[in-house]
Amino acid sequence: MINQQDVETFFHECHHTAKEGKVASYIPALARVNPDTFAISILTKNGEKLEYGDVRQTFTLQSISKVLAFLFALENFGEEKVFDKITLDPKGDPFNSIMGFQSTTEGNVYNPMINSGAIVICAMIAEEYGEQALSKVMSFIKKLTNDETIYVDVEVFDSEKSTAYRNRAIAYFLQDAGIIADTNVALDLYFQLCSIAVNVEAIARIGAILANKGYEPVSEIQMVSDSNVKMVNAYMLLSGMYDASSKFAIKVGVPAKSGVSGSILAVVTDKMGIGILSPPLDERGNSVAGIRLLKKLSDEWDLSIF
Amino acid sequence: MINQQDVETFFHECHHTAKEGKVASYIPALARVNPDTFAISILTKNGEKLEYGDVRQTFTLQSISKVLAFLFALENFGEEKVFDKITLDPKGDPFNSIMGFQSTTEGNVYNPMINSGAIVICAMIAEEYGEQALSKVMSFIKKLTNDETIYVDVEVFDSEKSTAYRNRAIAYFLQDAGIIADTNVALDLYFQLCSIAVNVEAIARIGAILANKGYEPVSEIQMVSDSNVKMVNAYMLLSGMYDASSKFAIKVGVPAKSGVSGSILAVVTDKMGIGILSPPLDERGNSVAGIRLLKKLSDEWDLSIF
Amino acid sequence: MINQQDVETFFHECHHTAKEGKVASYIPALARVNPDTFAISILTKNGEKLEYGDVRQTFTLQSISKVLAFLFALENFGEEKVFDKITLDPKGDPFNSIMGFQSTTEGNVYNPMINSGAIVICAMIAEEYGEQALSKVMSFIKKLTNDETIYVDVEVFDSEKSTAYRNRAIAYFLQDAGIIADTNVALDLYFQLCSIAVNVEAIARIGAILANKGYEPVSEIQMVSDSNVKMVNAYMLLSGMYDASSKFAIKVGVPAKSGVSGSILAVVTDKMGIGILSPPLDERGNSVAGIRLLKKLSDEWDLSIF
Amino acid sequence: MINQQDVETFFHECHHTAKEGKVASYIPALARVNPDTFAISILTKNGEKLEYGDVRQTFTLQSISKVLAFLFALENFGEEKVFDKITLDPKGDPFNSIMGFQSTTEGNVYNPMINSGAIVICAMIAEEYGEQALSKVMSFIKKLTNDETIYVDVEVFDSEKSTAYRNRAIAYFLQDAGIIADTNVALDLYFQLCSIAVNVEAIARIGAILANKGYEPVSEIQMVSDSNVKMVNAYMLLSGMYDASSKFAIKVGVPAKSGVSGSILAVVTDKMGIGILSPPLDERGNSVAGIRLLKKLSDEWDLSIF
Repeated sequence: MINQQDVETFFHECHHTAKEGKVASYIPALARVNPDTFAISILTKNGEKLEYGDVRQTFTLQSISKVLAFLFALENFGEEKVFDKITLDPKGDPFNSIMGFQSTTEGNVYNPMINSGAIVICAMIAEEYGEQALSKVMSFIKKLTNDETIYVDVEVFDSEKSTAYRNRAIAYFLQDAGIIADTNVALDLYFQLCSIAVNVEAIARIGAILANKGYEPVSEIQMVSDSNVKMVNAYMLLSGMYDASSKFAIKVGVPAKSGVSGSILAVVTDKMGIGILSPPLDERGNSVAGIRLLKKLSDEWDLSIF
Repeated sequence: MINQQDVETFFHECHHTAKEGKVASYIPALARVNPDTFAISILTKNGEKLEYGDVRQTFTLQSISKVLAFLFALENFGEEKVFDKITLDPKGDPFNSIMGFQSTTEGNVYNPMINSGAIVICAMIAEEYGEQALSKVMSFIKKLTNDETIYVDVEVFDSEKSTAYRNRAIAYFLQDAGIIADTNVALDLYFQLCSIAVNVEAIARIGAILANKGYEPVSEIQMVSDSNVKMVNAYMLLSGMYDASSKFAIKVGVPAKSGVSGSILAVVTDKMGIGILSPPLDERGNSVAGIRLLKKLSDEWDLSIF
Repeated sequence: MINQQDVETFFHECHHTAKEGKVASYIPALARVNPDTFAISILTKNGEKLEYGDVRQTFTLQSISKVLAFLFALENFGEEKVFDKITLDPKGDPFNSIMGFQSTTEGNVYNPMINSGAIVICAMIAEEYGEQALSKVMSFIKKLTNDETIYVDVEVFDSEKSTAYRNRAIAYFLQDAGIIADTNVALDLYFQLCSIAVNVEAIARIGAILANKGYEPVSEIQMVSDSNVKMVNAYMLLSGMYDASSKFAIKVGVPAKSGVSGSILAVVTDKMGIGILSPPLDERGNSVAGIRLLKKLSDEWDLSIF
Repeated sequence: MINQQDVETFFHECHHTAKEGKVASYIPALARVNPDTFAISILTKNGEKLEYGDVRQTFTLQSISKVLAFLFALENFGEEKVFDKITLDPKGDPFNSIMGFQSTTEGNVYNPMINSGAIVICAMIAEEYGEQALSKVMSFIKKLTNDETIYVDVEVFDSEKSTAYRNRAIAYFLQDAGIIADTNVALDLYFQLCSIAVNVEAIARIGAILANKGYEPVSEIQMVSDSNVKMVNAYMLLSGMYDASSKFAIKVGVPAKSGVSGSILAVVTDKMGIGILSPPLDERGNSVAGIRLLKKLSDEWDLSIF
């Protein structure tokens, strides 16, 4: 059922929709990317690899790094310590709410899939490992991707760091509340992780591990624990696609995380990992052609976990 | 892996936790139920049935009826008409929110898994079918459950109807906003559906159909469409367990819907449907022992969809 | 300084601005009023009366009745009992808020100047006096206005009652929360008070009493207590002009309450009471020409209490 | 009616209530103040001065500086330019709200009486005057107070600046939204103004000018415009006492602004200005004994503007 021909056909069917989106432009390094870039890489549970398009093109992880920081924290600090600061209940409907009016907004405070929670995670890592923090996380990502060439794009890092007034506001708020110890330390790691350069193959491999209870498909070595994988996948399904998360869950039905570089990490539980790159974004910050291609694959290959 | 012995062992392990909860007491008919009642019924995709405990005990659907009304509406009115009034995006994280503060509360307005949205769905059905509305939905449920004995518990209906000031507030608000035409008409159907009496076997059968792309496991007849099933399952995962929905998704990992009668409908995609009854509720309105038993089953039988 | 010639000049200067507004149309009785109607009546602390325009035209009190119900409750039940249910702190800025985001919305719950709080006040009166409630409040108003001809406009009452889905929603919410005992009883009195027909002279007299520590200017008899007057005036300044209350306080600087009939009650402490009628409303529900005329009077006669 | 004997009697009656409060302790300079310090200074419209207690004790303006920065901006930039960034409508009740639930929190965004709006005002001043900003505002305050000895307390300034994570969060949020140009520049001026050291006599003099349409009582020279005075007084009444503003307006009835140094500026329109110092604060951040003494003066001398 899963076959290279479909990948190529769907790829060409969806490519033109990129025109409906806009490349992120808040920093120069993101703005000057070629909007026609389009790439997909799939790694199945059985180690089969399908890919098409600009698969060697590197891009920065941006918000996909939230998944990796969260997973790193769970693996290294354990569930209890992480959930001491991060909510186990990213969103919830109060029993008997009137149209959601009383819906507490505290629900997604410190959700590791959005900026505030990811900054808290980065602070935890930075506070634990000090100057080793970045290299620790980099080693973890290199191991997962089996790719020693990944690196921090310093130009992107510098740009992110100098323009991120809103993230700085969030971090100072967290510091005021006593949740994090030092805004600058937390944000440095946060922006470094956002600026890690990878390609779609690396993303697909991460997705395959998350789809396979933590086992690397080819070597069958367990890289991360099954229970941590389940948690990360659940968070992605609940809130990995920004404001469109629920709609994506309902319409596509797989855990996924997108980044403003136009990248998407998708996890098809028990089947495959998928990495996609197409820079133009819709108004909610998700890759237009990337979502279209995932919807097509889900419909045609029956990938929904529901 | 799935076996009767486990069911009985886990059942006894979890039964005592019911003591931590409280039976709903806002109407007499719910308050006088035996808190020790405990029942589970499982129907697998292959038609295998496992059950234990008070499996003949009837109880009212309460909020589980939200799933059935939503599914009925999707089947009879089509996706487009339903989503004209019901949000496709029950919850979402705005891109770049500060700790969720700007999180629009409009997100879960009209979510069919909570009261406001379910009242909208009931209004749609009542406005379309008039006096036939209840019998239409009853026929649908009888077909799904293959159980002709289900009925509306009139005592529960009368009690619900006369005490539901909050639901009446919600409905008048919807009528003021022009979303529904008539508060009394919508609420009558809403309370009738909440008051439908069933047993756990009926719930398990509904769950099995939802776990099996809409096909009844034994007869292999398709009862509802695959795409509607996927949508209903996604909504259940996102918001079927009230305020604890996300936590349940992360910790147990299956679509489920609970009712204040202490009942839970759980859908293990591609594997089985589960019906559970244990009346004592936790502070979020979910059956204490029911959640415990589902967690145990998920952990031991590896049921999580993530 | 205060003189009839100014009143007439300013009246004609402001009359045309009524064209910028729209007459309330949610019930027929309000919709068919003549939009050109314009009247002002002033009663000074010294008993001097100035008036101009359609001063015999009757109109319904609408939200101006909130002031009278609140004052009636304070006079008859005492401050302590009233503030057991009504907030003493209608609005507040939390110390150190971030842009008001954490601003609790509970602040104006049960503010007697807006619908929810006025319904609570009506429930208190109705629960205390039963079937005598309306006649008790009517007697109070007749005494204040020295006008035995005021009456409940039954057509307006019937229309209000049958279309007020939002007020019904509010009242059921209050009943659910245990704040009021019976939605229908509370709303009946609420709509009766809204439907009391008066003219601008009656309003001016009420205003003069409120401007004069509770003493009727001509007879110099104390009608209500000084401390209750101060409280009612403060509430009017803080929230008597709906969403435009603060702007009105800053720009005009006198306690005032408006109604959707296009009427305004203004209190110039230690100087005079003013009643105005001009039915066309701005988008915030206040009389366009009425606000214009009050601003003109405040600027020219230096009426601001600041 | 206004007499020194009352001042002394009420002073002693209220002094002990300071024990119910707590001195602000977030920076050392505030924490080590003597909690028994208590001082009042009154300057009437006619130039009469009454004072008692530790009237030479200096303290930092803290939030009272918000009033002066706002007044400075109005005087120097004009109403139009200031209200381009600062809301004219600090708070408002939406027409027909359900219990205030839809009450927009944007209402008090940029209210110059709370931190966010005061930071915006400081940014405007700093952007206009650059390095001259502080000396410009200092000259203004020295002129108003006729006190050349006022100075910036550098120790307080340094402490405020290094600990103010929440204000830094607010400012970065404003910079992200394009409301202010530079967080550090705006906050430097903001903290400098908070750190200006004065005594109660200076505060009373400012209050007297605000109570007297902008005229200095003794010299009868107009220091600021009448219309700006009215606006500043209205803002103080609406939101000068933090979360207790409405309650204070209802119970005491005069425009006032408090600071965490335990100081209060009160304006009795057309009568007098009052400066009070008593460091222990209630849980809303207002001087306990200061509020008590103002309430007593208002009750006994009939000072309420309502």
